[in-house]
Amino acid sequence: MKTLEELQEIAIETIRQEQFLHSPYTLYEPIHYTMEQEGKRIRPLLTLLASELFEGNIENAKPSALAIETAHNFTLLHDDIMDASPLRRGKETVYKKYGTDKAILSGDTMLAIAYQYLLRSPKALIAELMECFTKGMIDVFAGQAYDMEFEQRNDVRIEEYIDMISLKTGALLATSLQLGAITAQAKPQDIENLYEFGINIGIAFQLMDDILDCWSNFEEFGKVTGTDIADNKKTFLYLKSLEIASKEEKEVLLKYFSSTSFDPKEKEDAVKAIYHKLNLKQIAQELMQTYNAKAMDSLQKIGVNDKQKTNLINFANKLMHRNK
Amino acid sequence: MKTLEELQEIAIETIRQEQFLHSPYTLYEPIHYTMEQEGKRIRPLLTLLASELFEGNIENAKPSALAIETAHNFTLLHDDIMDASPLRRGKETVYKKYGTDKAILSGDTMLAIAYQYLLRSPKALIAELMECFTKGMIDVFAGQAYDMEFEQRNDVRIEEYIDMISLKTGALLATSLQLGAITAQAKPQDIENLYEFGINIGIAFQLMDDILDCWSNFEEFGKVTGTDIADNKKTFLYLKSLEIASKEEKEVLLKYFSSTSFDPKEKEDAVKAIYHKLNLKQIAQELMQTYNAKAMDSLQKIGVNDKQKTNLINFANKLMHRNK
Repeated sequence: MKTLEELQEIAIETIRQEQFLHSPYTLYEPIHYTMEQEGKRIRPLLTLLASELFEGNIENAKPSALAIETAHNFTLLHDDIMDASPLRRGKETVYKKYGTDKAILSGDTMLAIAYQYLLRSPKALIAELMECFTKGMIDVFAGQAYDMEFEQRNDVRIEEYIDMISLKTGALLATSLQLGAITAQAKPQDIENLYEFGINIGIAFQLMDDILDCWSNFEEFGKVTGTDIADNKKTFLYLKSLEIASKEEKEVLLKYFSSTSFDPKEKEDAVKAIYHKLNLKQIAQELMQTYNAKAMDSLQKIGVNDKQKTNLINFANKLMHRNK
Repeated sequence: MKTLEELQEIAIETIRQEQFLHSPYTLYEPIHYTMEQEGKRIRPLLTLLASELFEGNIENAKPSALAIETAHNFTLLHDDIMDASPLRRGKETVYKKYGTDKAILSGDTMLAIAYQYLLRSPKALIAELMECFTKGMIDVFAGQAYDMEFEQRNDVRIEEYIDMISLKTGALLATSLQLGAITAQAKPQDIENLYEFGINIGIAFQLMDDILDCWSNFEEFGKVTGTDIADNKKTFLYLKSLEIASKEEKEVLLKYFSSTSFDPKEKEDAVKAIYHKLNLKQIAQELMQTYNAKAMDSLQKIGVNDKQKTNLINFANKLMHRNK
């Protein structure tokens, strides 16, 4: 069985071998720019991990790995426009560097390229892979839509927030795993449990992102931190703090989250002081552990021997203890 | 054999039966808004026409018809952002009505929905339909990229313009036909000829669009006219006029197409006066006829009896004589 590190190297190398730079250059240069930034390649790694879990032929999983990483990067191109994010992985975002129009069109093209990658899969599996992948994308779009809706609402409940991130972040991680499992021709019940594992890991992953956005710094995180507070994002931290804050603290929070016109530094300091007093970091970490435990429960149910599951357990542990 | 009008009614009805309005509403309302505007449904009609041409089962073609119309409308949502178009089919464009972010995300979702429709096709055909559809979309994106590049360039050749519109407009019409032909399990050589028919019809269609943008009026056309001149679009009209204009006329054209800061009315009148003097409308109509004739040549080669081809011939004739 391949190690986690070996599989990550295969994921990185599989993507590295693809050529994105060709005409029309105004269309493909932003794609090349995005794809050559080697992030953690978490999603294609999950696809390969799922293939290994069910002892599939890794070559059959590579098209799905390529598809999911390309699709993930497509969502980043468009999300960065919507969120007006200037930086990603420590570099200029595509819309900042090339303009909104090119970020839209290059993103669109990346989604189609993702489908082209899926078409390289064994023919008998294509319809099932396409269905799984397309459902995953539609879930991600719904998640992004709810995320934007929540910015305008003042009555978001914590359960709604969890549902939103399970779509926005969980669905793509779960889909990455599902695609790999399909290529290994796993049993439907096992695929379902692996999907649940992915959703819960995704929720935990996003809670960690919220924590890092609040308490990490730019050098470590590779992107601007404190943006959730600046943008009035209704993250778990905010929603939970409203629930447990005193009347006075609640008023401060509601005031700062009602507008984006406050001095950003003043706002960040004031909100973080309340989060600190309310012990929000620890509360969020505990919730993250709860979802991690749910993920482990789902993994437990999958009908392969425990040794085969080691990689996924290690993967989940690394996610829980990352600093970027 | 069904008539052109019957098939158009089936195309319209097939789309009318779909429900787009559900949660998250911020995501699906723009999709509903777009899809309920019943345009000419040209692309799904072409899919059904291709199915009929090869005596296919029309039920098998309907998923492709839905996919291609949804994908076409997706491209409009994003193109209207890039072109900053306020109106489409006489109504506000999605980005004007709902904002850029929603137009991006709803557009993305429509592309995924198009793939979901394709997945309703007979299972044995799905991989081939997906491949054809995806290639068509990638061509369309390349066409849009070239179109935007040309706005920045002063040395666009007429052949480059034709190549661009064969991608931007031709590819989707040709793909519409190809999908229908695949569902009818037509012979590869016949599919190829039908594809060529589509590309050439597409070029003729776009030349007609250029003519209408210049010489039609808002009431007839349903969108703002004169935009190509206002936006310095290097259409055939402009490129050909540069080729045959006198030195003085050429200077006027180059001056007006070097900026968007001129008074729009003054610019439009000056450019149209030159087009008129150079007989550009007739020249463009003749070129349109040339591509129409090429399309007819390709149609001729297809191995079905002439009677079966009547609908497509009538369809092409209608396109050549439309006023919107």
